[in-house]
Amino acid sequence: MRAGKINIMNKLDYFFRPRSVAVIGASRSPKKIGHVILRNFLEGGFRGKVYPINPMAGSLFGLRCYPSVLKVPRRIDLAVVSVPAPLVPKVLDECGRKGIPSVIIISGGFGEVGNTELEQDCLRIIRKHRMRAIGPNCIGVYEPSSGVDTFFLPRYKLERPKPGSVAFISQSGALGSVVLDWMAMKGYRISKFISYGNALDVDEAELTEYLASDSSTKVICCYFEGLKHGRRFYDTLRKVSSRKPVIIIKGGRTEEGTRAVSSHTGSLAGSREVHSAAFRQAGGIEAGTLEELFDFARVLATQPSPKGNRVQVITDGGGFGVLTTDWLIHNNLALAGMSRKTVSSLKKVLPPHVVIKNPLDLTGDATVERYSMAIDASIADPNVDMIAVIALFQIPTLTADIVDVVSAASDRSSKPMIVIAAGGRFTEVLKKTLEDSGVPTFSYPEKAAAALKALYDFSREARA
Amino acid sequence: MRAGKINIMNKLDYFFRPRSVAVIGASRSPKKIGHVILRNFLEGGFRGKVYPINPMAGSLFGLRCYPSVLKVPRRIDLAVVSVPAPLVPKVLDECGRKGIPSVIIISGGFGEVGNTELEQDCLRIIRKHRMRAIGPNCIGVYEPSSGVDTFFLPRYKLERPKPGSVAFISQSGALGSVVLDWMAMKGYRISKFISYGNALDVDEAELTEYLASDSSTKVICCYFEGLKHGRRFYDTLRKVSSRKPVIIIKGGRTEEGTRAVSSHTGSLAGSREVHSAAFRQAGGIEAGTLEELFDFARVLATQPSPKGNRVQVITDGGGFGVLTTDWLIHNNLALAGMSRKTVSSLKKVLPPHVVIKNPLDLTGDATVERYSMAIDASIADPNVDMIAVIALFQIPTLTADIVDVVSAASDRSSKPMIVIAAGGRFTEVLKKTLEDSGVPTFSYPEKAAAALKALYDFSREARA
Repeated sequence: MRAGKINIMNKLDYFFRPRSVAVIGASRSPKKIGHVILRNFLEGGFRGKVYPINPMAGSLFGLRCYPSVLKVPRRIDLAVVSVPAPLVPKVLDECGRKGIPSVIIISGGFGEVGNTELEQDCLRIIRKHRMRAIGPNCIGVYEPSSGVDTFFLPRYKLERPKPGSVAFISQSGALGSVVLDWMAMKGYRISKFISYGNALDVDEAELTEYLASDSSTKVICCYFEGLKHGRRFYDTLRKVSSRKPVIIIKGGRTEEGTRAVSSHTGSLAGSREVHSAAFRQAGGIEAGTLEELFDFARVLATQPSPKGNRVQVITDGGGFGVLTTDWLIHNNLALAGMSRKTVSSLKKVLPPHVVIKNPLDLTGDATVERYSMAIDASIADPNVDMIAVIALFQIPTLTADIVDVVSAASDRSSKPMIVIAAGGRFTEVLKKTLEDSGVPTFSYPEKAAAALKALYDFSREARA
Repeated sequence: MRAGKINIMNKLDYFFRPRSVAVIGASRSPKKIGHVILRNFLEGGFRGKVYPINPMAGSLFGLRCYPSVLKVPRRIDLAVVSVPAPLVPKVLDECGRKGIPSVIIISGGFGEVGNTELEQDCLRIIRKHRMRAIGPNCIGVYEPSSGVDTFFLPRYKLERPKPGSVAFISQSGALGSVVLDWMAMKGYRISKFISYGNALDVDEAELTEYLASDSSTKVICCYFEGLKHGRRFYDTLRKVSSRKPVIIIKGGRTEEGTRAVSSHTGSLAGSREVHSAAFRQAGGIEAGTLEELFDFARVLATQPSPKGNRVQVITDGGGFGVLTTDWLIHNNLALAGMSRKTVSSLKKVLPPHVVIKNPLDLTGDATVERYSMAIDASIADPNVDMIAVIALFQIPTLTADIVDVVSAASDRSSKPMIVIAAGGRFTEVLKKTLEDSGVPTFSYPEKAAAALKALYDFSREARA
């Protein structure tokens, strides 16, 4: 049950890779937050020591229960606190005296409901003991590799994504967690998730900086309503954004939305224009919707930088080819023009009713072999920078081997490649297989085109 | 095996409610289009007579196979033709001599590949015998109530939606069919689907007119690349659009997309601006994306007309409340201000930490009872025109009963109501139940807001 050796380099590492955890407020009652959190640690793959803390319980799930962290005979790296707000200062003080370096305060009832004095009491205790804290009023951390999971939502209601390379910072806990649930269903992966709530100590800037140096994270996604320390965040963003893509979606972009924010997390949401301009100036990538946020992230996390904006479209459905073309152009991307050499060699191998142009419509009797030849030609042609493969899997002549052919081509290609495939359950299964092998898939052309545009923009930003 | 009595009022009825069908080109080989179509009619719930036509086969699936429709001893209402293009004129002439009123020509190889002469031959035969024809170069018709299903894609690869009240006309067969597959997975329903390909005889205008008088169709959706007879279509649209919503998405909106169209269906796609302006002037509702098309359709098919643009938002997640507010305002809708009477009565029954405003955040410990009270109050309040219920089903205090409560409220409400719920499999199951009882559901705020806006716009159009 002991975790392997872990070098703690940064104090924030204790949040994500603790060797031992105290669950303060652990409970026998399945309706209590502390119950669900304790179960997450016991059943969710966490390999370190777990200490339930509750003055009333003798043992929980066969583990000895301690009345206070002070009674635990060993070292504790992380405490997860879900006791009622008025009890939090006392608990924090005990954590500090025990020498616990990091605390996640799940409990609400602080600044967000006007209880700023209680919040400041907590801050004084945290500073006094030189602890680091995430929260309060948050759902905390999910780290699929280490098994840290402070979500108080059971797994049957809220699935968890597998380990990946996209990190997600969300000010809102509910929003962040339902998005993870959706990601898990889609087969999208995650490196780290943090909901930081009122940001009493650790804020968005520090988290972004931490993730920038986290080797398991390739792309950083953020949902913010207001920024705790705007200037610090923008300074961090400026340093980080040319190395690692930071994609941001901002809640509270209208006046009415801003008013809704103030009663949600108590933070002040600035106007959309101000934030948008600042994000972009600092090199951040702005997403318009939550879906777009993860569309961008999947492509940026898996695909190489394109050399230019010329896209070759390969399709077995004319209508989807037309819509994809429309959306590529709408996003200021261009249709690639294959070299004469490529065109003449494709003419030799493709049937006469396939016209070699862009979109390259392999038509409704397309085979895996035709796709393979068209993709290989696009990879080899110097006039092609990115490849958009539309595969309507439903056509009778296309077998499921198409998935292996596309994955293998994507593996050996130094050009970005994405797949557009719309349909029902049969299609979704094939798309999940593609996602699993690192090929981003999209149901609809408009989303694929927007994601390729984000990839292209970041490649220019990174080169600049 | 005989169909009940059907009154054929309109000649196009034979396409959708035939009492007998000849499948011309029926085949033993599962890879042949004629094989799949024959199976659809035999296994998909069609209750009329089915006659396989193939000069080479003695019997198919235990049915006697005729060498020509002329040899069938009884009346035939519909012929589905999937023989190679050069054989089509001969087959059509036989259909005409047999007195078959309607023919769906699935076969390709006509105008779309430059074979206009063959196409004109077919037209002459059709006119001579006063037949009506859909196609060629199409996938034809799907009518879930009568069991007509000419798709040449097997059901395990391409699911079919259940009977509903949304009709879909698609110039592109592949695009239309994968969209149906996706609709089936989502639990969305359909009244009639028509892919009309080259529109040699029956065109988009006539289909729209037919659907306008079809009692099972409440909303008409269209995917067009180019219009066969633009003026005729706009004239029809002008007559239809104030009675029944007609939602349109146009492929080929950019110059490059237009060029892609020309090699797809051989039709000329006009510029986006020209079409957009004409659609709107004629009262059509333009959708930006395929998803939006069906988002609009679901809301327009199930929800009553709102009296105004004031939306009450009810939520259990602050972040989603904020994003929803942003998108409502972005779509020129307004936040409703509940009357003082409603506010004070809600104050009495809701816990003190729930602040009565808009969005009404029932918070992360929301119960079904709280939702019920908030929804009832919104239905009763004269200052509320539409209701957007955000239900993050994952929170521990919310049971699955929420689905029944929302469905029942929606049933008795004369105000439009939609549900926003994002998440994984658990959430998707609850959403499907809501869809089944006629409550439109959305994963994300931006889509819900755009659909409410379409509903509001149509209500003004219809009143005007």
